[in-house]
Amino acid sequence: MQINLHQTHHTIADFNEIFSYLKREEEKGTFENSINLFPELFLCGYPLQDLLLTKEFIRNYHIFLDDIKTWWKEKKRNNSVLLLGGLDYRIENDIPAQIKNVVLELSDHKSLEVIYTKCLLPSYDIFDEAKYYSPGKEASIWTYQDLSFGILICEDMWFSPHYDFNPVEKLHEISKDKTLNGIFNFSASPFHLGKENSRMTRAKEISTQFSNIPFYYVNRVGSEDEIVFDGASFILKDQTISHKALSFKEDLITDDLQDAKLVDQKCEESKSKYSFETLFDTQLCYDTKPPKLLKFDDDSARTALHALHLGIMDYANKIGAKKFLVALSGGIDSALVLTLLGLFKSSEQEVEAVYMPSQFSANLSYEISKKLCDNLGIKLTTQPIKFLHSAIRNSFKENFEALDGLADENIQSRIRGALIYARSNQTGSIVINTSNKSELAVGYSTLYGDSVGAISPLGDLYKSEVFELCRYINKSYQDIIPEEVINRPPSAELREDQKDEQSLPPYEVLDAILEGYLSYKYDMKDLIDLGFNVDDVAKVVRLNNLSEYKRAQFCPIIKLKAKSFGFGRRIPITKKF
Amino acid sequence: MQINLHQTHHTIADFNEIFSYLKREEEKGTFENSINLFPELFLCGYPLQDLLLTKEFIRNYHIFLDDIKTWWKEKKRNNSVLLLGGLDYRIENDIPAQIKNVVLELSDHKSLEVIYTKCLLPSYDIFDEAKYYSPGKEASIWTYQDLSFGILICEDMWFSPHYDFNPVEKLHEISKDKTLNGIFNFSASPFHLGKENSRMTRAKEISTQFSNIPFYYVNRVGSEDEIVFDGASFILKDQTISHKALSFKEDLITDDLQDAKLVDQKCEESKSKYSFETLFDTQLCYDTKPPKLLKFDDDSARTALHALHLGIMDYANKIGAKKFLVALSGGIDSALVLTLLGLFKSSEQEVEAVYMPSQFSANLSYEISKKLCDNLGIKLTTQPIKFLHSAIRNSFKENFEALDGLADENIQSRIRGALIYARSNQTGSIVINTSNKSELAVGYSTLYGDSVGAISPLGDLYKSEVFELCRYINKSYQDIIPEEVINRPPSAELREDQKDEQSLPPYEVLDAILEGYLSYKYDMKDLIDLGFNVDDVAKVVRLNNLSEYKRAQFCPIIKLKAKSFGFGRRIPITKKF
Repeated sequence: MQINLHQTHHTIADFNEIFSYLKREEEKGTFENSINLFPELFLCGYPLQDLLLTKEFIRNYHIFLDDIKTWWKEKKRNNSVLLLGGLDYRIENDIPAQIKNVVLELSDHKSLEVIYTKCLLPSYDIFDEAKYYSPGKEASIWTYQDLSFGILICEDMWFSPHYDFNPVEKLHEISKDKTLNGIFNFSASPFHLGKENSRMTRAKEISTQFSNIPFYYVNRVGSEDEIVFDGASFILKDQTISHKALSFKEDLITDDLQDAKLVDQKCEESKSKYSFETLFDTQLCYDTKPPKLLKFDDDSARTALHALHLGIMDYANKIGAKKFLVALSGGIDSALVLTLLGLFKSSEQEVEAVYMPSQFSANLSYEISKKLCDNLGIKLTTQPIKFLHSAIRNSFKENFEALDGLADENIQSRIRGALIYARSNQTGSIVINTSNKSELAVGYSTLYGDSVGAISPLGDLYKSEVFELCRYINKSYQDIIPEEVINRPPSAELREDQKDEQSLPPYEVLDAILEGYLSYKYDMKDLIDLGFNVDDVAKVVRLNNLSEYKRAQFCPIIKLKAKSFGFGRRIPITKKF
Repeated sequence: MQINLHQTHHTIADFNEIFSYLKREEEKGTFENSINLFPELFLCGYPLQDLLLTKEFIRNYHIFLDDIKTWWKEKKRNNSVLLLGGLDYRIENDIPAQIKNVVLELSDHKSLEVIYTKCLLPSYDIFDEAKYYSPGKEASIWTYQDLSFGILICEDMWFSPHYDFNPVEKLHEISKDKTLNGIFNFSASPFHLGKENSRMTRAKEISTQFSNIPFYYVNRVGSEDEIVFDGASFILKDQTISHKALSFKEDLITDDLQDAKLVDQKCEESKSKYSFETLFDTQLCYDTKPPKLLKFDDDSARTALHALHLGIMDYANKIGAKKFLVALSGGIDSALVLTLLGLFKSSEQEVEAVYMPSQFSANLSYEISKKLCDNLGIKLTTQPIKFLHSAIRNSFKENFEALDGLADENIQSRIRGALIYARSNQTGSIVINTSNKSELAVGYSTLYGDSVGAISPLGDLYKSEVFELCRYINKSYQDIIPEEVINRPPSAELREDQKDEQSLPPYEVLDAILEGYLSYKYDMKDLIDLGFNVDDVAKVVRLNNLSEYKRAQFCPIIKLKAKSFGFGRRIPITKKF
């Protein structure tokens, strides 16, 4: 008997695709003489949000379950067990009166029977599970022949004081004086930097509590709008990771149960006291002064790149886009975005760059753009906006009054937004957004101008992190990004001699204040006590509050951190500032 | 002794404003010899979303509570009781470990003591209360001198099978063989058409169950982003509404307790079986064929106008905008939006209209725009886009390829988007969006083009309802909207002789399919069974699914219906279509 962990990658609600995977693995003989673990909500995808409640989805899901049952009954199988993450509906009067997040068993004896219901329903940050699901209340030991395993679904392995129930403790209680062969955790656990370590640390902690029992962790892979699932499934034995699946890719890992030693569950005092996946998780440490920014080492930079790769490409694949379009400004953000696409794109995909200079664009901006495109082998087209800008200026002078100040700056950005989308319409390409987290935070961008795009790869990276990632890429890929763009002072080039630092504190200060403020632990008073300039703090906080309305109309941001803008951060627009 | 229901209107987290209200009412003597009921979360505003978790907010809230306590202690009061909706935090290590939605008592004996915790935490549609709050588990009878009242907070008066606890039943149980003087419900209940009736019906039902006990319902008023609170507080006595507060305005209603008769609570069988405020609430009836659209009668049209008035003006006031800007197309949507602003604006506010014709704009479009502006006394400026459009066409031919088809249509819309925002930047005005629910549903609009704006008044009204509302307005305000715009066939005017019906089914069909599909009860099969054309249904559903990404970048929509686009409807962009 062996245990297979299927780290799978499917589109939400693509039942045909999911079924094909099962049929293919069965043909390969993978299921024979084995227990096969599939991720949380494998049978439907995650997160489904309100799709869960639509009649169309509910109908198709149930047809799919019936199809699987019929298929499974068609032939006699030899010790094949599938444990599948899925949904359990209670329908009353055509209405989903109750929905549970469960594990279903498909075996010689059972035809998609529920063997466990998720107990802890995360409802913080991007999570809304309590909105849709009813919780399980029971720990569960699953047995097959002479084997016994404890079962957990994702969040169940964590605990925090928010919950009035600790599934790991409950499992420990009911397994006292029994023999367990291991613990299964079925996950759909979103990625952020540092998450993988947290999972393994917590798995070790649980394993220890259960006398060094093996821990099987299967996670899904793929990207859904802003959420990246990294996979990174693993098997822990004797406090060592004995098997590890790839990160950000489909994979299958197999463990031979012959190796497993049965562990007697003696009553032990619980040592569990950590809580990671909570609302208040943060990279900040209270006694760090000033707030510590994420410093990319080679490892975390590489991981961030993998996450961005999956995030961008999965979005494109799922909406059927094969062409990418980037508006290059000669600045570092668009340079990084284009570089990412150049590095990530497959041979069937195309990337196009457009440079749209105005009268305020420096020659250097063109030179950088040209050099970068040459380095990446990407076609660059120059589409000047100088004439259009002056035509609009004239027209405004005639019909309204002369454009100046912010109105004159923003119109340039919006002309570019309109033009890049005209090109997108011509070629059927998707526009990749180039905003970073610092400018999103303080609203230093033009709504419907440089803020346009289908998806944002840099929206969870502060400007200083954008620089760091560029340096890492240059170290790894022979200075593919022109040094000039890394060394020049950031500018929006919307008026003569404009520099970002005329409007904002220097980025190392701005980003530190933002990380302190946004990641929940510091308020204005704390930041001032930490030594930041009062005016800087007041300005940053004010700008952040004022720009909520811009973020409300922003595209999905690929999530890289514990706390990101987007669905996981919900602040009303109208409030007292 | 009397009971005062304070139907108040405050900005979220504006503690000064809230405190001023209390001080003002105290100076007027309102609090003397009376029990004063304030709405749910009166002390902070609602909905707060993640503001609830920020240190800044938590700190300021607690300072505010201390200030109130100090103020209250300053002088001896005469039978003054304030029952205030507010928050109860349990803070551990500077982190909000638990938050409760409560009623606090401020009286001779109590200094902001919690007297009740909300039990039912709505978590459907726009509601996310289970995400933030911990539920109460107990019914409560509040006593003062020889008076006794049952207490409920908003959702507690409703019940649905989703909840495993029925607060009304619980209250009924604990009040058996006791004497109650009435039931208080403290609400922050969002408006939608028909909601007011549901509340009163349910109040009557509860009152009956408690032997015709008086029912005091206090609701907040105001608009928060997309949610309108209508107030409409009431007192129910002997199955009759004895007092009724204004809708959509601050108000205070007073009941003299001398009138109240004490009611003996005998044990009665419960008759409660209805559930209104549930996820599956819908205006659709399963046996109605085809789906019934909302038909405006004078009453509902007037109510919708009041809700839009509050929704637009409160948004503007809260962000400090005094000027409004509308891009007129000569079509019915922008005509209605401008008319609303013309009717709603106060003497300190300004409204400006801009008409931006292209080569495809009919003369009639200008004539309609001119006539409408004359009727409303609003200044109209014509800002042609013909030259800009042809300049962009030339530039594209030179740098890329000739613009045609969709690319050429969309660029016109995006030029208008850029120009209207340039004007907005010049005058400091806010652009009011003109999209309707039908076009939002099928994506029949241009992202960053005609979909721009700060807030959307028509985003919850189908095109057919836009027509109906115009007809109602014309009936009530001497044909202020030119008949020509009501009678001409809808067109985007982005190519020669374009008509909406070339791309979409006729609106009466489209809107009926959409209402059936979006309000949850019907799936494609149902709609086809109901007699809709297979191709129409398939097309509408496909377009709806494909345009999720546009709605994800749309501005807040003022909610008028039980099911609206926006925060209360969350569908992933990437999924199997």
